[in-house]
Amino acid sequence: MSSKLNLKSVACIGCGVIGAGWVARFIENGVNIKIYDISDQSRQALDRTLTNAEIAYSNLTCLPRRHRGKAVFTTTISEAVKGVDLIIESIPERTEIKRLAYEEIEKECDTDTLIASSTSGILPSKLQKNMKRPERFFVGHPFNPVYLLPLVEVVAGEKTSQKTLDKAMQVYKEIGMHPIYIKKEIEAFVADRLLEAIWRESRWLIKDGICTTAELDDIVRFGFGLRYAQMGVFDTYRVAGGEKGMRHFLEQFGPCLKWPWTKLTNVPDFNDELIELISQQSDNQSGHFSISEMEQRRDANLVSIQKALKAHNWGAGQTLIDYEEQLKKMTLNDFRSDGHLYEGIRTLRRRAPSDWGDYNGHMNEARYLDCFCEATDQFMQIIGCDEEYVRNGNSYFTVETHIRHLKEVQIGQTVAVETMLVASEGKKMHLFHTMLNEEKEICATG
Amino acid sequence: MSSKLNLKSVACIGCGVIGAGWVARFIENGVNIKIYDISDQSRQALDRTLTNAEIAYSNLTCLPRRHRGKAVFTTTISEAVKGVDLIIESIPERTEIKRLAYEEIEKECDTDTLIASSTSGILPSKLQKNMKRPERFFVGHPFNPVYLLPLVEVVAGEKTSQKTLDKAMQVYKEIGMHPIYIKKEIEAFVADRLLEAIWRESRWLIKDGICTTAELDDIVRFGFGLRYAQMGVFDTYRVAGGEKGMRHFLEQFGPCLKWPWTKLTNVPDFNDELIELISQQSDNQSGHFSISEMEQRRDANLVSIQKALKAHNWGAGQTLIDYEEQLKKMTLNDFRSDGHLYEGIRTLRRRAPSDWGDYNGHMNEARYLDCFCEATDQFMQIIGCDEEYVRNGNSYFTVETHIRHLKEVQIGQTVAVETMLVASEGKKMHLFHTMLNEEKEICATG
Repeated sequence: MSSKLNLKSVACIGCGVIGAGWVARFIENGVNIKIYDISDQSRQALDRTLTNAEIAYSNLTCLPRRHRGKAVFTTTISEAVKGVDLIIESIPERTEIKRLAYEEIEKECDTDTLIASSTSGILPSKLQKNMKRPERFFVGHPFNPVYLLPLVEVVAGEKTSQKTLDKAMQVYKEIGMHPIYIKKEIEAFVADRLLEAIWRESRWLIKDGICTTAELDDIVRFGFGLRYAQMGVFDTYRVAGGEKGMRHFLEQFGPCLKWPWTKLTNVPDFNDELIELISQQSDNQSGHFSISEMEQRRDANLVSIQKALKAHNWGAGQTLIDYEEQLKKMTLNDFRSDGHLYEGIRTLRRRAPSDWGDYNGHMNEARYLDCFCEATDQFMQIIGCDEEYVRNGNSYFTVETHIRHLKEVQIGQTVAVETMLVASEGKKMHLFHTMLNEEKEICATG
Repeated sequence: MSSKLNLKSVACIGCGVIGAGWVARFIENGVNIKIYDISDQSRQALDRTLTNAEIAYSNLTCLPRRHRGKAVFTTTISEAVKGVDLIIESIPERTEIKRLAYEEIEKECDTDTLIASSTSGILPSKLQKNMKRPERFFVGHPFNPVYLLPLVEVVAGEKTSQKTLDKAMQVYKEIGMHPIYIKKEIEAFVADRLLEAIWRESRWLIKDGICTTAELDDIVRFGFGLRYAQMGVFDTYRVAGGEKGMRHFLEQFGPCLKWPWTKLTNVPDFNDELIELISQQSDNQSGHFSISEMEQRRDANLVSIQKALKAHNWGAGQTLIDYEEQLKKMTLNDFRSDGHLYEGIRTLRRRAPSDWGDYNGHMNEARYLDCFCEATDQFMQIIGCDEEYVRNGNSYFTVETHIRHLKEVQIGQTVAVETMLVASEGKKMHLFHTMLNEEKEICATG
């Protein structure tokens, strides 16, 4: 995959929670965005999302990132869609409103511009029905927070072309996502069918007074939620079945399906009383946090979970590895065009993430070495000592490390590392790293 | 919470996947176990579980752990239950078989021994019906892998005493779990009601050919599974609703519930054809891994996710923090009875976990400093410079670090750190750490 994105500009029609999440992901990946939203409040909400996303990405990877794209608001749909490569619609979930928007969009956009809907459940065939060029339309259903969760469900309508789908899958991969193509279109696709099943069962449990919302949430996040972050429904049961395999597990499981708890398949009435009950319990559970605090904590958790999985080349961690490969190539290309080893090159730029703190609120001492190690790795890649070099039986080892801690780094502060080759003799190299803060003060040397 | 467990010995009746998981968790926490299982194969399977658990715990915490308990197999239930403090039943999910086992158990166990069933769905009132002393019976429903997932659902029957419940909650907390008391007993309790809803919907999706098992699993682990590892159903929706709160979100959500995807509430026939379809797809998805490889990868992921959450004092990470507090107290107590600062004390013992590797398969250089930092922290706690000391405005800072890398540490190798106070002058301290491998060779000094 190339380090340059094929996309140059995107239009986002609708900038609520989902639209803003798309804007944040594209901006982080160097794409310019034009935004149209009927509400005046969307700008303010977008600012918060962009701030959250910037913090999240600086914690997610310590590699130099793409230069951020620019976002502008437009006053009409026509203005937004003119000349862009991709249009993403994230407006309310009503077929008629969406169709009207597509009519407006098609009047002004280029003939081969892709048009994607973020709908979480309406059939693409239904949405593309009256379009002039329905072959370039598809559903790309993301998950909140869009800038952090890798999944996007890609669903074709009857008239969607293969070329459109191929391009869509490519775009999502380039911006660090994990697209899954859903072969058959059904309402709610796959993820929301599963989520709706859980949501329906949860409402029964609260309505019947079996547990509170707080207890139910704990049951999810201290139990199967931990499993689902790394293996899905079927792999989890496969492992539980032991060496005898999935078939054996299913044959055992069979009888349980006749047990009484499978009979609760009705949908509970969603009346004022149930709304009141759930809202009250939710306030008791998490009312002591503001929503923006919860967003920040959620993001910090999601970042750390993905980094944890990265260490095992697994699931969402694999997506992150692939994404970082693109960033590394970009830095390499940038360097090859204008760098020099003995002058010191920027090998790292990162914000000290909240999970790097010590009890004084400063970056833990060991993290200085983390930064220098990342910088060394990056330097080695730049001089051509990459994974292939190691596969061929060559390698470099660190024999001695000397760090001077000169200035404290606060959590949340951004630091950069410049690496210089001080001496190289035979098989030995002596690297000198300088860690600088935003005021260009030297925080540490290694 | 005291560093010593109140429990001295436990009997496990039934040693399949769940029983073996309990055995592993108790042994890791210094409790001796007597095991009864009708199958001869359970010993071999248990060995694998114990090995997995030992690796998992050595990766989960780098603090010195409790001295492992001992496990012995018995040939009768009577022999197993004699003189123990707690009996855990994890035999097949059939009321009649379980009742027969309780009859056998009650003949020989002490009058105040707690009896817990691991049932994932049978009502405790039904199970305790014919017991002589039903007040000491309850359900403690754990989740696979039992030695790693913190959740246990605690459910009382009509005749269960409050004293029994209090003791049960206490025991689970001491062994690093997060017990949730379910107020009302219903079949399948809470977690399995949610899991059954997902499982039912998943079977429809496979049967109807919407996606494969591999695609469905990816949709879980690249999307909402990541969210559920840290926030449950209600908190997730609360955040999605924005500052207007849960009530607003529910009012918006309401109309969607009338959408067509909520009608799929039937249960698909679980016939040979569906079993074949799912088994075949699951083999295609993960047949290239053995189950024991998958177990090890699952465990490594679960360990890293919990450590990631620990850095944010959140969810399952909070449980890990509480658990480590107990371990720290234990080390402190051990030290106070026989240690001396200038002689060098064992401040750390850990296995180099798989996420600490570099591309040479050795422990990454930065992790040496991680080990030394942990050792310093532990040393500071021992000399009384703990969180309270810091709260009172005092602290120590590291001004200079010098590490000599003398011998490579392989991933999976266990290292110990001994810390010695070399010099202390005024406010300054000079610590000398020695990292030793299992052959007592010095791998690094700091």
